[in-house]
Parts: sequence; structure tokens; C-alpha cells
Amino acid sequence: MTELIDRRNLSFVLYELEDVEQLTRYPRFAEHSRETFEAAIDTAHAIAADKFAPHNRKSDLQEPRLVDGRVEMVPEVREALEAYVEAGFTAMELDFEAGGMQLPGPVALACSSLFQIANIATAAYAGLSHGVAAMLEAHGSEEQKRRYMDPINAGRFFGTMCLSEPHAGSSLADIRTRAEPAPEGHYLLTGSKMWISGGDHELAENIIEMVLAKIPGGPPGVKGISLFIVPKYLVNEDGSPGERNDIQLAGLNHKMGYRGTTNTFLKLGEHGRCIGYLVGEPHRGLSYMFHMMNGARIGVGMGATALGYAGYLHSLEYARERPQGRHPDQKDPSTAPVPIIEHADVRRMLLQQKCYVEGAYALAMYCSSLLLRSRHEEDARVRDESGLLLDVLTPVMKAWPSAWCLKANELAIQVLGGYGYTRDYPVEQYYRDNRLNPIHEGTNGIQALDLLGRKVQMRGGGGLSLLGREMQASIEAALAEPALQEQARALAGALEALRRTTDGIGTELAEGHVRSGLANAHAYLEMTGHIVIAWMWLRQALVAARAVDGARGADESFYRGKLQACRFFFRHELPRVHVHAALLDSGDRTTLGMAPEWF
Amino acid sequence: MTELIDRRNLSFVLYELEDVEQLTRYPRFAEHSRETFEAAIDTAHAIAADKFAPHNRKSDLQEPRLVDGRVEMVPEVREALEAYVEAGFTAMELDFEAGGMQLPGPVALACSSLFQIANIATAAYAGLSHGVAAMLEAHGSEEQKRRYMDPINAGRFFGTMCLSEPHAGSSLADIRTRAEPAPEGHYLLTGSKMWISGGDHELAENIIEMVLAKIPGGPPGVKGISLFIVPKYLVNEDGSPGERNDIQLAGLNHKMGYRGTTNTFLKLGEHGRCIGYLVGEPHRGLSYMFHMMNGARIGVGMGATALGYAGYLHSLEYARERPQGRHPDQKDPSTAPVPIIEHADVRRMLLQQKCYVEGAYALAMYCSSLLLRSRHEEDARVRDESGLLLDVLTPVMKAWPSAWCLKANELAIQVLGGYGYTRDYPVEQYYRDNRLNPIHEGTNGIQALDLLGRKVQMRGGGGLSLLGREMQASIEAALAEPALQEQARALAGALEALRRTTDGIGTELAEGHVRSGLANAHAYLEMTGHIVIAWMWLRQALVAARAVDGARGADESFYRGKLQACRFFFRHELPRVHVHAALLDSGDRTTLGMAPEWF
Repeated sequence: MTELIDRRNLSFVLYELEDVEQLTRYPRFAEHSRETFEAAIDTAHAIAADKFAPHNRKSDLQEPRLVDGRVEMVPEVREALEAYVEAGFTAMELDFEAGGMQLPGPVALACSSLFQIANIATAAYAGLSHGVAAMLEAHGSEEQKRRYMDPINAGRFFGTMCLSEPHAGSSLADIRTRAEPAPEGHYLLTGSKMWISGGDHELAENIIEMVLAKIPGGPPGVKGISLFIVPKYLVNEDGSPGERNDIQLAGLNHKMGYRGTTNTFLKLGEHGRCIGYLVGEPHRGLSYMFHMMNGARIGVGMGATALGYAGYLHSLEYARERPQGRHPDQKDPSTAPVPIIEHADVRRMLLQQKCYVEGAYALAMYCSSLLLRSRHEEDARVRDESGLLLDVLTPVMKAWPSAWCLKANELAIQVLGGYGYTRDYPVEQYYRDNRLNPIHEGTNGIQALDLLGRKVQMRGGGGLSLLGREMQASIEAALAEPALQEQARALAGALEALRRTTDGIGTELAEGHVRSGLANAHAYLEMTGHIVIAWMWLRQALVAARAVDGARGADESFYRGKLQACRFFFRHELPRVHVHAALLDSGDRTTLGMAPEWF
Repeated sequence: MTELIDRRNLSFVLYELEDVEQLTRYPRFAEHSRETFEAAIDTAHAIAADKFAPHNRKSDLQEPRLVDGRVEMVPEVREALEAYVEAGFTAMELDFEAGGMQLPGPVALACSSLFQIANIATAAYAGLSHGVAAMLEAHGSEEQKRRYMDPINAGRFFGTMCLSEPHAGSSLADIRTRAEPAPEGHYLLTGSKMWISGGDHELAENIIEMVLAKIPGGPPGVKGISLFIVPKYLVNEDGSPGERNDIQLAGLNHKMGYRGTTNTFLKLGEHGRCIGYLVGEPHRGLSYMFHMMNGARIGVGMGATALGYAGYLHSLEYARERPQGRHPDQKDPSTAPVPIIEHADVRRMLLQQKCYVEGAYALAMYCSSLLLRSRHEEDARVRDESGLLLDVLTPVMKAWPSAWCLKANELAIQVLGGYGYTRDYPVEQYYRDNRLNPIHEGTNGIQALDLLGRKVQMRGGGGLSLLGREMQASIEAALAEPALQEQARALAGALEALRRTTDGIGTELAEGHVRSGLANAHAYLEMTGHIVIAWMWLRQALVAARAVDGARGADESFYRGKLQACRFFFRHELPRVHVHAALLDSGDRTTLGMAPEWF
């Protein structure tokens, strides 16, 4: 059985790259230590391996079914989630007082990633619930927290979010679900919601659905969207379960992958009594939902990374064990075949995977550190800058891993050859599961518009300046390391190209040429993503370059692998950004110029 | 229902690009005309639409099963193949005298592509059988042709090829199946064969398995491989079916896609009486098999193209019909949403798909024309050069569409968003089906070694020189067209880079640095592939540029689409080749330098 994760790499990212031990200087984490972090990770690892991984294939082959209006699924999903709740993982970041582990975000993320690697579809129920709890923490009333958030944190209720409708996926301005105020103070909702992951199941006492809807008379478009708590079962004043709310499961979607997570079509108010409770102010629902969406986008990126990681480790193990063929200068058929990891092209495919998944993993941890600093730093400027940097990186963290760790899964299949294409090996499932990630929580096309049209423009381009400043610090440190000067110069060149390109497009947008300025947003996202990941590799290489001389044995190999992977990324991958830059700088309008009838 | 193919594009490729009408100047095709070609294509189109397409999803959901030692599958597969046989498509290229249609290769390929677009898995049985018949035509004895080939051409027998074994996929030097001469003149085979598509089924009277095995005492490695006819049922002298041969179905492989085609694990000689008949000379089996393999490689490329095409047309239709969102400079939510084809990024995804699938389709037709010329041209030099060019292009034709038309399928899913990820739409199946193509008939890694290590080196680099000469002719023609000068210069630059890179690696190989010279063969294949497809687009644009001014209505739109797609490929895709060239020219050895223990 392949290991779930390379624990050496996990330790490297947490303690050597992000230095999470120094987080214990925050009063909130003062009672923690590397030992308590490792204890949490060990527990997560054990539950992920024992309870999540074993049914990963089974819940793919036996996907949830609709039987007499209820969702039936393999019992192992519930058992796994019970073990997860039992061990306290619904409350990883919660206060000790509230029964939580009070872990810093990066350590909690490390734990979550293990569940995702073991079984993305089962882990999704927990991830969605966590997102709802975090959003209620930020925007719910005290009463709403007590009645809905606390039971989610205790693992008794699960949660999910309901944005899309059958006719409105990416375009939330066009949602039609209505919420009419009722005399009792709540609202009555009517409408349909599509693509709702975890929208119905029998895994918990209750499901808290966070629903976007429009209150009649409000402004048109996204400015008229409000957010409602719609529990599957109404919750009485004393917390006891009340009657069934009028939110009905109208159908399950049958997907290519990610099959263990129910994906539902829901109807609200078919009988005129779907009760919802307004969160915060009317018409401000989208901004509240974005609190959850931003977390979900980073979660999607982490999920994509987890699937990439699982495939990488599996194909690596296979490549070490499978003998096949000989070196091209050693054709004597009487010699023994070599393990396929000896072949240059197999190493290329493994190096690509390593670069993609470990690069994305490092970025996820970096984003998690930013989130933590944006909340817990004393210095208001640091809090603000961390939040700004996270805003810029969120579309990258969502889209880059979902594109490139999917590519990693494609390569993992290729390493296994025909075996990889069969359902006897797990890599084909990772590939199918991962194909969802470029789509949900805002397609990668939406992320590209978000990055270029909003995030790098806002606050006078302050976010990108900040990102450049952070990269510059790494570049300067790397220039002082003889082994990393080539990479430092390459990243400096790429960053310069990014600034030039961004300025050019910024001018175009400022002049009102919005359509043409954003026409190649995809290339801009690809370019930014590869530069950010190159930076992540340079950061890793800096740590490795300083540590490798004093290291021996497996540790030395580990650092040499980091240095070589960094070299690979800079030589084989980073140069793509100049192709994107040239296209963007040329102001190419080929896509806009293609009339629909010319296809 | 989406059209199977854009018939306008099919006509364009056949009559305007490849000018197949002039093939009627060959005596062999003198009785044909555009009308007879169109009649054959119409018939293929009708059968593909009526008999192949309707069960494409059904045979995916209900894949073949092993029941009491026999393969059970949905009955529509047999019905479709019966209609195919009935209409004479097993004998498309056969002499009129032998009951064939005596069609030229490109027209036959056009017909085949329609069956592949409609249902790749059902079409595969026919394609494999066709390959066996063609190989027996070239290398079988008269007796073998009569007894095995003729019934295949008549559609009574099906055929397949048996190369891989469980321990030996890519490395045929290591196969262990043995063939011992028996006193009666035949051989007795023992061994196992893995990944045999169409290796067992009940679709025809008999299955002719072409098996690679080693005759004891022969040379080691690939030089000791012989080729045998192993019928599932022995065939009596008079052609009547004889006893069951000792070749047993040991299991079915369960794949991610391409599920309608049985993929089998076969055991030969479990009871010591698996009878095989030697084809040609002993120990020359691999060269005979390559006759079939080369055809199969082009067939794989065409299959990948067909799947890409199917996804492209489906996503194009969806993009025209699905309203969603507004232009970025038109946010007023009271205006109607636009069809998603209006969005620049959706057009980008459609243009990428169009470039990949129509570029690959043009290449397949060009390869088919080369094959025809290599056989039927009077001038021996033209025959020789056509064969040489085809040799160089075969690995490109196998690998490029299987990489990039798979990418097209990934994009087709993305255009459909969440709907594309469900099994209610066909695009997810195309993606799963197409993932096989980079693996079978020689992985794309093997194709890269074949291209760089053999094809561009052989005959003093004559194949690449010839390819360059052909491209140069298109470049010069395009330089005379004002609208195509940018592309002509870009292709000239890319070709120059390819020559320089090839020379550099050629020198390295000649100096004996084989391992390092071939280390980045994958990048070389990618580079060559993109240049060849750019050339295919320039050829298409040349035709379009000359025709567009006189065209009106749908015809004008068609030509404008070709010109715009060509522009897109040259601006968005071709520049990648310089990244590959820079890597190759730098002599990068990062993959070789990565020790296995560093991963």
C-alpha cells in the first residue's frame, strides 16, 4: 500500500518552509508545540489511513443512490465521518474552551489534506461543513451561532452551500430563487438549486443549507442577493430537532468522478413552506457567501493538490518496482530489464508530478499562513497586507492546482501504462475525481477574470506590488546562494515580464477597453500561476541549499531532490511564461475576432 | 443531436486540401469520381449515425462481461458490425473483383473516421480486423490469405494482434511466449498475452489472433521474435470451422474508458495444444507486425482525433445554445444573458479544440495520401519519398492527436461546466475513452524515442530533409499571400529551430552520447508535432485565402473560420516550440541527474 503522504515533505513544508513552530509566539497558540502539532497530524494520518482510504474505490463503484426519496450510500462513509468527528477534527481550529484543538491554520490544513488524499469524496462532507461553520462565525448572529454553528462544530449537523441554479451556474446575477418575508420574522423561499454537493444525505442529524436568494423589491443582479440559513430539519429553541423543512431532493447528479459525494438538485418551497433565516443584512448575501467561497476556493486547490499527490506517490512506487526495458545505449536483451524509474522519460513524468504537487502544496500552506497572519498578527499593517496578498493568490490557488495537478494525474496514469488505465489501480480514479476541480467553486475561466479584472487592479495594483516585493526578497536571498543564481535571475525576469504585462493591460482597462483587455485572461492566469509556483520552488530550494551540506543519508537525498526539482521547474516549466507574456503584450485579439458563425 | 462531423470540413480536407478527385488519374481508381466517393461517405455516415452512435453510452455503462467463460456484451455492438459488414466496409479498399469498393485510402479513412466518431469502441473491432487483413495481404502465404484473410475481408472472421504480456508491455524483447515446431508443420504455442483488444468475443464466426512468440533456439531479444496466426477456432481445408484452439480467455480488463471494446488477458497452450501457423520467415515477426503496427498507430491517432472531434462539435453546439452571463463591459443585470460562445474564454476553448481536431484530421488525411502514393505512384522516387515521409510522420500522427485531442476533450468538458462532468452528456465519456490513446500501440514516450532516435536519423536524416522541403514549399506559397506572411515567417523560424535542434542532437548521438541525446525526446516530439500541425494549418489557410474572396454566405464563413483558426494556432500554440527548442539546445540533463532516491 502506497503511503498517504511523504511525511518528510510535510515536515519540511510545515517546519522548515513555513516555520509553524514560531506560531507558538502568538498567545492563541502558546500552549502548542511541535509535539502537539505532530500528535494531531498522527491522529489524522491514522484515521485517514484506517477509515477514509479503504472505501475510496468502493464509494466510486457504488455511488450514492436515490431510494424512496432518501440518499443511500455505502456505510463506510458515515463510519469514517464518525471517527473524524469523534477525534475532534470538526473543531480543529476552535477554542480549547469550546472543546476545540485551537490549532493554527497550516497545521489544520495539513490534517485536512490527509483526509483528502485518502478519500476526497468523503472528506468533502467535512470540508463543506467546516466552511459553513466558519461563515456563520463571521456573519451569523449569536442566536444563529448557537443554534446552527455549534452543532456543526460538534459534528452533529453538516452544512453545505447553495448558489447555482439549473439556468445560472457562473452567473449568480441571474438566480431566481425568491425569499418572501413572513410575519413570524423568517422568510419563505421558493426556487431550485443545482450542483449542490452534500445537499442531501443521511450522514448527520441535520443539514444546514446556506442558500442565496432574492428578496422581492431588492436591487437587480448580484446587489440584490441575500443569504439564508435553510435547515433540512427546523431546529427548536432548545436545540432539539423540529419538523422537516420544505426543501426537497429532486434528483442526484451522476458524475464522472468524485462520485462518493452526493451532488444534488434541490427544490425549495414546493409546498410553500420552505423556511429560511436571513444572515446579516438583506442584499449583502454575496459578500457573506464569498467568505465561504474564498475558503472553498483554497479548499478546491488543496483537494486538487491532494489528488495529484496521491497519484504521484502511487506512480512513484510503481516506477521503482516495475522492471521494463533497458537504457537506449544498452540493448543487450540478455541483461536484466531496469526499473522504469531509470528511464529518462519516466523520470520526466515523475519530476513534473513532483513539481506540480509539492509546488501546489507549498502554495496552499503559504496561503494558510497568510490567512492566519491576516487574523492573528498584532500589527495592523501586517494583517492588512497578508489579507491583500491572500486576495491576489486565491484565484491562483484555486485554478493552478486544479489545472496542473490534474495534469499530474494524467502523467501518473501514463507511468503505469495499461495498468494505469484499469480500475484495478487507483490512478484512473484520481484523474476522474480531479477533473471536477477546474469547474466547481468558480470555473478556472472565472478565476482568470477575477485575477486580472479585479485582484491585480484593486487598491491601485497594491496586491501585485506586494507579491512582487515578497518574491524580490526570495530572489535576493537566492542570488547569494551560488547554486540558485540561475533560478533567481530567471524568476526576476519572469516577475519583470509579469509587471510589464500587468501594466499594459491595466492601461488598456483604464482606457475602458474592458473586453479586449480581459480577452486573454486565461493566459494571464497561467503565467501568474507558473511564476508563483516557481517562487514556491525557489523558497523551497533556499531552505534545501542551506541544509543540504550538513545533511546525511535520507535527509541529504531529500534536499537534493528539492534542489533538482527546483532546477527542473525552472528549466522545463517556467519558460512557458514568456510565451504567455508575448501573447498578452501583443494585444492579440484572435478570440474576439472569431465570429460565432465561423466555427 | 449533434452532427457526427462537419461535412463541409470533410469535403474541404478531401477535395480542396488533398484533392482526392485527381486520384482518379490512377488506373486503380479510374472508375471512381467525386460522386462515388460521396456515396460511400453518405452510406458510412448513415450507418454510423443509425447503428453506431445510439449505443455509444450503453456499451460504456454496460461493459462486456465474462459469463461462463464467454464474453457477453450489449447486442447493439453485433448489430452495428453486421450493418458495417453488410454495406461492404470491411472491403473498402479491396479490388472490385474481390467484391471490394476499391476506394482510395483517404476516402476509406474518411468513412472509418465516421464510425470512430460515432462509437470508437465498436469501431475498434473493425479497425483491428482490417489491420490483420492488411498485414496478411502483405506477408501471408496464398494459402493463409485464402483461409484467414478472405473471411476477414468478408466480415465473417474478426482479427486482432497479441504483442504484450503481463510483464512485457513496451519491451517486446522480453516476451516469453514460446512456439515449438510440431511434426505436422504448425507450431505449438505456450504463454500469456495481456491487453489484447478484441481478443475474445462472440461477434463473429472466428477470431484470427496474430501472435508474437519466440521459437526456441532463435536469437535473443527482438531478433528472435516470430509471428503466428492463432485462430480461435481452427479452420478446415475447405474453410469450414474446425475445433476450438487452445487459446483461453483468462480475464477481462476493466478500463476507465473505451469500455465497449473487450480488453483481454489470454492464455495460450494451457492444455498443450495451442496451434499457430508461422507467417513468413522465422525470427522476422516483429518487422511483419510493424506493418500492422504502423497502420494501427495512424489508426490510434485517427481515433484520438475522432474523439476530439466529437467533443468539439458537442461543446460548440452547447456554447451556441447556452445563455450565461454578460460581457465584462456590460454588467447591467436587466439585459439578457448572452450565449456563452460570446465569451472570449469560451471562444478560446473552442478555437483550441478546432485547431487540435481539424489540424489532426488534416494530418491523418495527409498521411493517408502518402501511404497511397507510396503504393500506387508510378514514379519510384515518389513512391520512396512518400514512404520515407510517412515513416517520419507516423510517430507524430500517433502521439500528437492522442495528447492534444485528449486536451480538446478536457476543454469540451470545461465548456459545458458542471453538465460536462455528468454522465448525462457525452463529453466526459470522450475524455475517458481518449485517455487510452497516449498509452496503446506504443506509449507516447516510445513514439518520442522512435522519432528522435530512429526516424529523423535514418537515411542520413533524409526523412526530415524531405519534410522540410515539403514545408518550405508551403512557406513560399504563403509568403506570396499578404494575409499569410506572418504565419509563413513563423513557420520558417520554427522549421529552422527544428533543423538546428535536430543537428545538435544528431551530433551528440553520433558521438555515442545516446542516453543524454535522447533524454528530452518528449520535448522533441512535442516540438515536431506542433510544427507539423502548424504546417497543416498553413496548408489549410492557403486554400482558404485563395477561396475566400469568391465565397459567399456559409462558404465564406467557413473559409474565414479556417483563416482565423490558423492565426490562432500560430499565435497561441506555435510559440511553444521555441521553449522546447531552447531546452533541447541547452543540453539539459535534469531528468538524468535526478537520482531515484531523491524523489
